Amino acid sequence: MGAYQTMSDSELKERKQKLDLQYTEMKKKKLKLDMSRGRPAANQLDLTMDMLKYELIADRIANENGVDTRNYGGVDGLPAVKKIFSELLDIDPANIIAGGNSSLNIMYDIIARALIFGVPGGSKPWGQQGKIKFLCPSPGYDRHFAITEEFGIEMVNIEMKDDGPDMDMVERLVSEDSSIKGIWCVPKYSNPTGITYSDEVVKRFAALKPKADDFRIFWDNAYCVHDLDENGDKLLNLLAECEKNGTEDMAYLFASTSKISFAGSGVAIVAASKNNIEKMKKQLFMQTIGPDKINHLRHAAFFKDASGVKEHMKKHAAIVKPKFDIVEKTLYNELGGLEIGSWSNPKGGYFISFSALSGCAKRIVALCKEAGVVLTPAGASYPYGIDPQDSNIRIAPTCPTVENLKQAAELFCLCVKIAGVEKILSQRG
Amino acid sequence: MGAYQTMSDSELKERKQKLDLQYTEMKKKKLKLDMSRGRPAANQLDLTMDMLKYELIADRIANENGVDTRNYGGVDGLPAVKKIFSELLDIDPANIIAGGNSSLNIMYDIIARALIFGVPGGSKPWGQQGKIKFLCPSPGYDRHFAITEEFGIEMVNIEMKDDGPDMDMVERLVSEDSSIKGIWCVPKYSNPTGITYSDEVVKRFAALKPKADDFRIFWDNAYCVHDLDENGDKLLNLLAECEKNGTEDMAYLFASTSKISFAGSGVAIVAASKNNIEKMKKQLFMQTIGPDKINHLRHAAFFKDASGVKEHMKKHAAIVKPKFDIVEKTLYNELGGLEIGSWSNPKGGYFISFSALSGCAKRIVALCKEAGVVLTPAGASYPYGIDPQDSNIRIAPTCPTVENLKQAAELFCLCVKIAGVEKILSQRG
Repeated sequence: MGAYQTMSDSELKERKQKLDLQYTEMKKKKLKLDMSRGRPAANQLDLTMDMLKYELIADRIANENGVDTRNYGGVDGLPAVKKIFSELLDIDPANIIAGGNSSLNIMYDIIARALIFGVPGGSKPWGQQGKIKFLCPSPGYDRHFAITEEFGIEMVNIEMKDDGPDMDMVERLVSEDSSIKGIWCVPKYSNPTGITYSDEVVKRFAALKPKADDFRIFWDNAYCVHDLDENGDKLLNLLAECEKNGTEDMAYLFASTSKISFAGSGVAIVAASKNNIEKMKKQLFMQTIGPDKINHLRHAAFFKDASGVKEHMKKHAAIVKPKFDIVEKTLYNELGGLEIGSWSNPKGGYFISFSALSGCAKRIVALCKEAGVVLTPAGASYPYGIDPQDSNIRIAPTCPTVENLKQAAELFCLCVKIAGVEKILSQRG
Repeated sequence: MGAYQTMSDSELKERKQKLDLQYTEMKKKKLKLDMSRGRPAANQLDLTMDMLKYELIADRIANENGVDTRNYGGVDGLPAVKKIFSELLDIDPANIIAGGNSSLNIMYDIIARALIFGVPGGSKPWGQQGKIKFLCPSPGYDRHFAITEEFGIEMVNIEMKDDGPDMDMVERLVSEDSSIKGIWCVPKYSNPTGITYSDEVVKRFAALKPKADDFRIFWDNAYCVHDLDENGDKLLNLLAECEKNGTEDMAYLFASTSKISFAGSGVAIVAASKNNIEKMKKQLFMQTIGPDKINHLRHAAFFKDASGVKEHMKKHAAIVKPKFDIVEKTLYNELGGLEIGSWSNPKGGYFISFSALSGCAKRIVALCKEAGVVLTPAGASYPYGIDPQDSNIRIAPTCPTVENLKQAAELFCLCVKIAGVEKILSQRG
């Protein structure tokens, strides 16, 4: 099939009639599917059910190297669980704090504290410096942007390229503007574009020379072990690169087991420099009686070590990859050659990112919704929910079944076609 | 034995010599005991081990009234666990948010948000109003005071009486000074004095007319079901009293299972007015992916309802009460009639509060430490760690064994006597 742009007006109008008929038929199926959030499917959650057996932790629960995991204390988390993350991320356990079930919560709290107290090395709390800004490589993770918006931090769009954020722009802005206090990053299998930052990009991050003395990189390595097959992307270790440059206080790294064990009952960590960790431990001691160490122990006992995690992730991939495959295949079969959209084929993570013709994303999402398939709202992956091109759509294929996904992907392609024809016709006036 | 004050100088000096000999003997025992923190003993933690069995939650974990407790979501907590707290506290579940494992964390976060965003009904964030203050009934809970100190909030001592804080003072200050934004309360089995606020005091709290439009009562009902026997104290429901006065936005109530199930792996809640809860839910949605709902389910399934919790607390009492008894009995036997100290005999909670002669608390704690028994640092129960009288000592009897407690209490009494004799002699010059 040829590109829509090469078709005549009458051909396009005829095509539109056919598509509308198909859409009417599709609506009769009364689909009710949700591809809006990166939620694990139930059978992924089933993979770690043995973690919930008491026998797994019975020997250790009351005396894990002298610690009664049931009691108060240990504000930086159980050493055994820090060790696993240490191996996975190649970071010294002393540079890791293991917390509760939500890395988002750790990020939010770090920003709240930066606003109230400032960060190590900073001369003033962020909250006492008037207008401050965060750089937001976009499309990016909507819940990152929601946090900065909530705190009234101005968000600055940065173009996301195939190897990471536009580093020329990042370097320039960070070195010129002392009101820029941070940047959001999902460096591996970026949410939603699925790309992984290149070694050069990571090195350029580590070499940043911010004008602000209290600038921080928020490095949300949410998909650090979430490869779809054995040929997963490799991400350079930001903290190690920063150490080479003496910039290690600039980086906060995050990870969690939310998409390894249980989405609501996992373990989240932050890794950072000695200065940052020491400060955080003191602050955490004021905030909490410590994380849930029994849950830490469950994770440590179930996974044992980094290779245990990696083996486990192959089971996730076996469930998730066929879902990515069916969506990508449907997109290819239905939209290939039409030149009305392009999409990512990521090697891991939780999303397929779709780029529609400019001005079509909202229309596509609305059409899908009307026919029973909920997608992430168009624009959600941009600061303030505004996609300047109205082009990007985030597809989250993990939660529905393969069969449902096939139907949803077919509907999606149909809606892309309808919106595409409409757009081209309207452009021609 | 007569009061030390009635003894002559030479009698006191002779007594001192004997006490010093006893102290030297005591040190030879090389005790190593910790009575510094209100930690549950291991056999208390053993009481809820069945909560950790997978079988308990197997039927419900993937479908608890339509919720997969293993997945994301439900920022206000699992309804089944809210229901239990609702029954315990006689508060509508709609007015409750169940969170993570630490009520201290919820309090800290509420204050952090009040500083950054303000509270519902307040015209400005707390952090934009210059110097602000909290009232601190003292002696009180050191970790409350640590939070306000951390945030740079000025703390104002309020005398703690047998029926609660000095309400004349509270009413006067709150109605006159708009920089007063909050008050810390442990209304039942107060930490450390063990008293419970009288109905009149609770009603006076509910009837406060603060000058500040953003004043809040932090009502930490940490020991709501922690009676030592069937004759436990009764606390009036602050939220209900506030509703009668239309002041319900003024109160944040807290509770947790930290000393019901597991100290590190319990469930903490906040209860508040509709306005406060609605605002908090929206803010929580920005902060976290939701609490650990599997752990919520464990608690719901294990306790079932409020009477399940109350029955369970009798098992705690059976372990804890003999420990209170041995300390109180030793204090009575050793110090009765000497008029060098007085102490509380609480009907619940986690502490015995000791009032030494003015100027003796630090000396007693130091003497105990030198002989191997760690007490809470003298002054810890006061803002900034300063007890104006240097008199109060908090005794936490739950963690050691009964046998160890007997030794520790004997040492304590000996140290009280030594410090008492020293004090009286020095006063006589």
